[in-house]
Amino acid sequence: MTTTEQGATISLDTAAELAAQLRVDSVRSATSAGSGHPTSSMSAADLLAVLVTRHLRYDWDQPRLPVNDHLIFSKGHASPLLYSVFKAVGVVSEDELLNGYRRFGQRLEGHPTPILPWVDVATGSLGQGLPDGVGVGLAGKYLDRLPYRVWVLTGDSELAEGSIWEALDKASYYKLSNLIVMADINRLGQRGQTDVGWNLEEYARRMEAFGARVLTIDGHDLTAIDKAMSAADDTSGSQPTVILAKTIKGKGFSEVENKNGWHGKPFPPDMAERAIAELGGVRELVVRGPRPEPATPGPVPDKPTTAPPPPATQAKPSATPPEYAVGEKVETRKAYGDALVALGARDDRVVVLDGEVSNSTFADEFTWAYPDRYFEMFIAEQQMVAAATGLAVRGYRAFASTFAAFFTRAYDFIRMGAISGVDLRLCGSHAGVEIGADGPSQMALEDLAMMRAVHGSTVLYPSDGTSTVALVEAMASTPGISYLRTTRGGYPGLYPTGEKFPIGGSKLVRSGDNDQVTLIGAGVTLHEALGAAEILHGEGIAARVIDCYSVKPVDTETLVAAAEATGGRIVIAEDHHPEGGLGSAVADALLAAGQQNLQLTHLAVSEMPGSGTGAELLAWAGVDADHIAAAARKLVGV
Amino acid sequence: MTTTEQGATISLDTAAELAAQLRVDSVRSATSAGSGHPTSSMSAADLLAVLVTRHLRYDWDQPRLPVNDHLIFSKGHASPLLYSVFKAVGVVSEDELLNGYRRFGQRLEGHPTPILPWVDVATGSLGQGLPDGVGVGLAGKYLDRLPYRVWVLTGDSELAEGSIWEALDKASYYKLSNLIVMADINRLGQRGQTDVGWNLEEYARRMEAFGARVLTIDGHDLTAIDKAMSAADDTSGSQPTVILAKTIKGKGFSEVENKNGWHGKPFPPDMAERAIAELGGVRELVVRGPRPEPATPGPVPDKPTTAPPPPATQAKPSATPPEYAVGEKVETRKAYGDALVALGARDDRVVVLDGEVSNSTFADEFTWAYPDRYFEMFIAEQQMVAAATGLAVRGYRAFASTFAAFFTRAYDFIRMGAISGVDLRLCGSHAGVEIGADGPSQMALEDLAMMRAVHGSTVLYPSDGTSTVALVEAMASTPGISYLRTTRGGYPGLYPTGEKFPIGGSKLVRSGDNDQVTLIGAGVTLHEALGAAEILHGEGIAARVIDCYSVKPVDTETLVAAAEATGGRIVIAEDHHPEGGLGSAVADALLAAGQQNLQLTHLAVSEMPGSGTGAELLAWAGVDADHIAAAARKLVGV
Repeated sequence: MTTTEQGATISLDTAAELAAQLRVDSVRSATSAGSGHPTSSMSAADLLAVLVTRHLRYDWDQPRLPVNDHLIFSKGHASPLLYSVFKAVGVVSEDELLNGYRRFGQRLEGHPTPILPWVDVATGSLGQGLPDGVGVGLAGKYLDRLPYRVWVLTGDSELAEGSIWEALDKASYYKLSNLIVMADINRLGQRGQTDVGWNLEEYARRMEAFGARVLTIDGHDLTAIDKAMSAADDTSGSQPTVILAKTIKGKGFSEVENKNGWHGKPFPPDMAERAIAELGGVRELVVRGPRPEPATPGPVPDKPTTAPPPPATQAKPSATPPEYAVGEKVETRKAYGDALVALGARDDRVVVLDGEVSNSTFADEFTWAYPDRYFEMFIAEQQMVAAATGLAVRGYRAFASTFAAFFTRAYDFIRMGAISGVDLRLCGSHAGVEIGADGPSQMALEDLAMMRAVHGSTVLYPSDGTSTVALVEAMASTPGISYLRTTRGGYPGLYPTGEKFPIGGSKLVRSGDNDQVTLIGAGVTLHEALGAAEILHGEGIAARVIDCYSVKPVDTETLVAAAEATGGRIVIAEDHHPEGGLGSAVADALLAAGQQNLQLTHLAVSEMPGSGTGAELLAWAGVDADHIAAAARKLVGV
Repeated sequence: MTTTEQGATISLDTAAELAAQLRVDSVRSATSAGSGHPTSSMSAADLLAVLVTRHLRYDWDQPRLPVNDHLIFSKGHASPLLYSVFKAVGVVSEDELLNGYRRFGQRLEGHPTPILPWVDVATGSLGQGLPDGVGVGLAGKYLDRLPYRVWVLTGDSELAEGSIWEALDKASYYKLSNLIVMADINRLGQRGQTDVGWNLEEYARRMEAFGARVLTIDGHDLTAIDKAMSAADDTSGSQPTVILAKTIKGKGFSEVENKNGWHGKPFPPDMAERAIAELGGVRELVVRGPRPEPATPGPVPDKPTTAPPPPATQAKPSATPPEYAVGEKVETRKAYGDALVALGARDDRVVVLDGEVSNSTFADEFTWAYPDRYFEMFIAEQQMVAAATGLAVRGYRAFASTFAAFFTRAYDFIRMGAISGVDLRLCGSHAGVEIGADGPSQMALEDLAMMRAVHGSTVLYPSDGTSTVALVEAMASTPGISYLRTTRGGYPGLYPTGEKFPIGGSKLVRSGDNDQVTLIGAGVTLHEALGAAEILHGEGIAARVIDCYSVKPVDTETLVAAAEATGGRIVIAEDHHPEGGLGSAVADALLAAGQQNLQLTHLAVSEMPGSGTGAELLAWAGVDADHIAAAARKLVGV
């Protein structure tokens, strides 16, 4: 076994040996598992061999070291290569590689996830690793101000994803010279040639037009790779670098080289034997590449911005949470912006992103208060969530906002964020038909369902300024994906300053000893439910009203108590399609708690809305006070 | 009032008058409504004035005429401009424009939708009109083979969306010379300057690198616009055209021209008056531009392809639906491909798209049978759904497939498809933990929730080949968004050939007179439920088993009957996260039907999975036969 000390210079001859080892180990691990992507690993083995021996500054024994470079496998299916690298640097054993890969209960999963300490983000949904890397790069350049680089390995099939171009656009806009893309152009996708094939000039033109410095090389020429990476090592420029590498899928094993039909297929054992023989047999190199240099943060760089100046009336930011009087009308989206500013004053790891609608979401208040910690993502919601993911990798508490409807654009990124185990704080404004005149394209009516279905998510929907502030504060320390739904219009404050809103809680905003029916709302429909209770009161019907501000986790205890107190008579109203939202949350909770004798009426937006005023549309949808009162009357039997 | 006859040549002087009228009417409509985007309309008024007078071949009295050009407002917020065009061509009255815009119950919604017969697709979620237009262009060039053109107006903020670049990539790959993009580069987004601003060279470089012919012009120079559109009229080339127009937001009203802070704001009445005066007052031009020429379909063009050749064993396509024996193991994804081929033989309006995984989804069978009706979208799921939308606009029955997990990438497009009222048939393969070794990034565990929450959607999840074939056939005539979830592994056939599977139905696959508990599954968990019933039978417990293949709409009648027959004891098992899927569908239906005394146990994937075999992971998740049996035992009280 050859072992090199960390920091020693490793020759390209050794790198060549390592490349062969990475190929052999990729073949062995996939064959051992009976599944995996050996050929996609083999095309990129030379890139990785040169990178880990000579350029990646990484202390493998201290994966959390702040000055380590980052390595992101955007082509996550090449996991045999990544895990073979981990074996080569001595952090994964041969036994684990051969007996753990893709096995139940093991950490070497089919596609890499941060269960492994050297993996930043889960990949496997193509076109996401690079956008995530942009987030890490933003942290490196503008927040940490440390000289680590972000090395991203992409495939070529994934270059067809628009998210890749959102990422390059932002990487060049933000001058991320610390971002280095290794694009493994092996021509072949899963079922045939990619649309661009080996037309490297076309890729280069596109990438250069998007602001990258492109170095086109033969991805199997170690000297060329080394030269390109040396050029990339110099991050003093103002552009991201793409090392555009022409490669051969299955490189090193003549039976499969550049042949279609071998994507995602392990070699049968006899073929694997021939591959290993052709590659020169099993090796046991253990190598450690360059050491990260200790570094103190550099100066704060100028950050490009197109933000308009703050209004003259803008108050100095204060750490004191904003306060709103009971009865005072305030938009919860405005309270979101106010709360962010206060949070930002107390916690300098709070960072904010928005998709060019910060004057609607009120994230612009944060922009004015802390321009250094705000990142404009323009109209690129996928990149916005990915950037938040990358910032979270570096320990920042990222809040990202846009119209709630447009988070549907980033659903795959949110889902992958959950698999990455990052904490993301998302705020969707302008929810539901309440927004009025803009019409259905701008109305989030699926967002609660979408966000509830994310693993480990928290879904919040406040109804007034005070509760919004409390929930934004709570989100700052909530793990996983948390989502806050805010409302366009202003509604009267319901709660006094200081009221607590624990996640998983709810508020009994109206109740008495003889309640006959429970009315459940959240956000705008809570106000409608209160209106309904008042109408019913005038008719001698006592209604209990619950503010279900925490849609997930939901407050089962309060719901059960209400169901029992009101004979199982419950009306739920929500400004959302009928499926998967507040109604489902309540129904699921009550049934899971074993509640029987339920008489549940669920009011939701069941038709396709058009334009109108918010009030007109809430009435049209049948979720306003009158409809809630009518549903309650029916349950009570009058 | 000046009226021109359809087909008469209209001078640029008249076009200039029309441009002023479009601006004035944009101002008036937005001010009348008290909301809307006049300044975004004013920047593009000259483009539209020249287009509708001199280039758009459209019979406004026959919007469904097959040879009409298509006009898509990708920047849907410029609806005042579009509606002012509709007034100018005489299909919308002044009264409707001034009293209908953005009002409740009216068709001139805040963002255009196909409620209007001259609108193809709903826009308003930016970056979607152009991808939709690519679909229309594909239909025009490869299927209809008619000389209509697709004119798409985009804004500049939306050029930050990756979907725009997916669209240009596909437009150039498929040589869509019938696609003409008018890019309105007015520099200002909602909250300030866009990231590229007025750097038209940068846009041009990007678009040219993506294969477009770019004509950069002053977007307020009518002669230049006319010349560019004349060049675009010639569609004999092999590239899409982009008319890259430098424009001024708010053009024509000096108080707001090129000023930030006027996005999405109507002018107050006094300002509107000044604007109208500066623009020369109200006009009442009615114009009709060029007539579409009658045309017979041209020859079938060569379509670019990178598809591998069909296997030698490939059978000749037959219109007879495939048949599978009871007990024979077949993957439902394979049955999907088989069914598509049979459907394609009978209906030449069936077209198929896939996101470069057709050898996994089995859409490749259709590729081999009918290469003319297959469109490879490579790894660009947003564009895939958008292309299906555009094809649906032209009356094709588009089926689009990818891994179920990756439809999350296109959720915004699916949502907008529902608003567009198009019929889309989506098939997601490799659902749930059943897929095994690939790990969580490839496992759809949110798809049922996501698809159920779409307005008017149909959600199907077959468990064997026979039911898959029946449901694919049903999808062909199902309006709206329909979604089929298929499974990776092969499971035994349960149903004989000829069995009917109506949408909204279910199958009682096992029942008796003394059933003590109901087990509900769909897809893979139906097989587990049947296994559980067998285990329970061995213990003397009679279990009823329901195949809930139609998750939405769900078969309430059968569910209610089962609940009543089994004392409300129900176990639901699904290979999906707990929220919003099959469990919610069943619970919602039973509660809405007034069922009480329910004792419902819901088994679902509640933790984050890793790799493993499908069987290991179904057991780990607690949704396999053993866990279902255990849950049933508990309900029955043994």
